[in-house]
Amino acid sequence: MPDPVPARRGRPGYDRESLLAVAVKLFNERGYDGTSMEDLSRRLGISKSAIYHHVPGKAELLRLAVSRALDGLFAEIDKLDAVDGRAIDRLEHLVRGSVIVLAEQLPFVTLLLRVRGNTAAEREALARRRQFDQLVTDLVTKAAAEGDLRPDVDPASAARLLFGMVNSLTEWYRPRGRASAAALAETVITVAFSGLRVRPAAAVRAGGRAPGHGNRAPDPCPAR
Amino acid sequence: MPDPVPARRGRPGYDRESLLAVAVKLFNERGYDGTSMEDLSRRLGISKSAIYHHVPGKAELLRLAVSRALDGLFAEIDKLDAVDGRAIDRLEHLVRGSVIVLAEQLPFVTLLLRVRGNTAAEREALARRRQFDQLVTDLVTKAAAEGDLRPDVDPASAARLLFGMVNSLTEWYRPRGRASAAALAETVITVAFSGLRVRPAAAVRAGGRAPGHGNRAPDPCPAR
Repeated sequence: MPDPVPARRGRPGYDRESLLAVAVKLFNERGYDGTSMEDLSRRLGISKSAIYHHVPGKAELLRLAVSRALDGLFAEIDKLDAVDGRAIDRLEHLVRGSVIVLAEQLPFVTLLLRVRGNTAAEREALARRRQFDQLVTDLVTKAAAEGDLRPDVDPASAARLLFGMVNSLTEWYRPRGRASAAALAETVITVAFSGLRVRPAAAVRAGGRAPGHGNRAPDPCPAR
Repeated sequence: MPDPVPARRGRPGYDRESLLAVAVKLFNERGYDGTSMEDLSRRLGISKSAIYHHVPGKAELLRLAVSRALDGLFAEIDKLDAVDGRAIDRLEHLVRGSVIVLAEQLPFVTLLLRVRGNTAAEREALARRRQFDQLVTDLVTKAAAEGDLRPDVDPASAARLLFGMVNSLTEWYRPRGRASAAALAETVITVAFSGLRVRPAAAVRAGGRAPGHGNRAPDPCPAR
C-alpha cells in the first residue's frame, strides 16, 4: 500500500486553495496592483508556469478571493428573509452576520476593502460591493421610515458609518476563534445601536452626573 | 513694470506645496510603495531632477504629507487641556476635532491611514499614529473609570471602533466646505455616543414598539 501522506521533497506543493491563501496575503501586504506574477512566483517558491497550472492569471486569483468575501456577505443578506420583525432588527442581524464573515474570511474581506478599481477585475469586485452597500442603505432607510432610527441622523450617513465601523475591524482584529468573533459582533452591535455613553439616568444612578451639553436626544425620562 | 502674473509657458511650474498635492494624490491612487519617482515625474510633467530640486526624495514627500495629518490630529489633543469636565466630554471634543481635521486635510489623512510600514518613513508615521491611538485609548479608559462608558463595552475595543468609524470617512466623504464638515462631525458624535436606535421610550412614543431582544442596557425608565 502506498504511503497515504507522501513526504514533501524540496519545494512545497500547492493546491489552488493554498496558492490562493499565499497570493491574498501578498496582495494585502503590497497591494494587488503592486504585486506582479514574478513577486508571486518568488514568494511561492514555484515557477510562473507552475502558477498558471492552477489559475489563468493574477485577475483570477483576485476574483476567487473577493468572491469568497462577497458570497459570505450576500449569504447574510439572504438569511434576512427568515428574520421576522422590524428593519432595525434585521439590520442588527446583518451587522452580526457581517462581523462573523469578516472574522472568518479576514484576509479575503481585507483584500475586498482595499481594492481600488484600477483593473477590470477590481471594478467587478467594487460593483458587487456597491450592491451590498445599497442593500444596507435600503435597510437603514426602512428602519428610519419605521421610526426606529434616530431622527437626527440621515440614513445614508448612518449606513456608511455603521459599515465603516464594521469594516475597520480588518485593520486591527486578529482571529481567536468562534467565541471571540461572536463577542466582537455583540460589542459592535452595542456601540453602533446603543452608543458609547451610558444613559443619562444610568449615569446619575452610578454616581456620575448626566452629560450637560448639546447634540443629545431629549431625555426619555423627563418626569424624573 | 513686469507682468505680475507671468504667463505659463508649456509645462506648469510647481512649488513644494503643489508638488506635494500631486504626489499625495498619486500615492493614494497607486499606493506609496507602488509609486516610483518615474511615475511621479510622468504625472507632474517635469523631470526627476526638477523634483529633486524641491525634495530629497519620495520618503520626504511621505514625511511632509503624513506630518500634515498628524500635526492636525495632535493639535486637537493639545486643545483638550482647555476642556473642563469629564473624560467622555473631552473624548467627544476630540472626535469632533478629528473629523474636522480629516475633512480639511483629507488626502493627507487618507495617505496616513493607508501607510503599511514597508519602509522607514512609513514606520515613523505608524509610530506617531500609534501614539495618537494610545492617547485615545487612555481617554476612553478614563471615561470608563468615571462611569460614563457603557459597562458592556471594553475600553480598548470602544476606542478602536470609535476611530474606526471616524477613519472610515476617508473612504466616502467628499469635502463640501466648513459647514458640511461640522454637520458630519455632529452626525458621527450622535451615532458613536448615542447609537443608531431611538430610545425604547421614544420608539413607543413614536408609535413603534420597543426593541424586544438582547444586548441592550436595562431600560432607564423602568417605572413606565
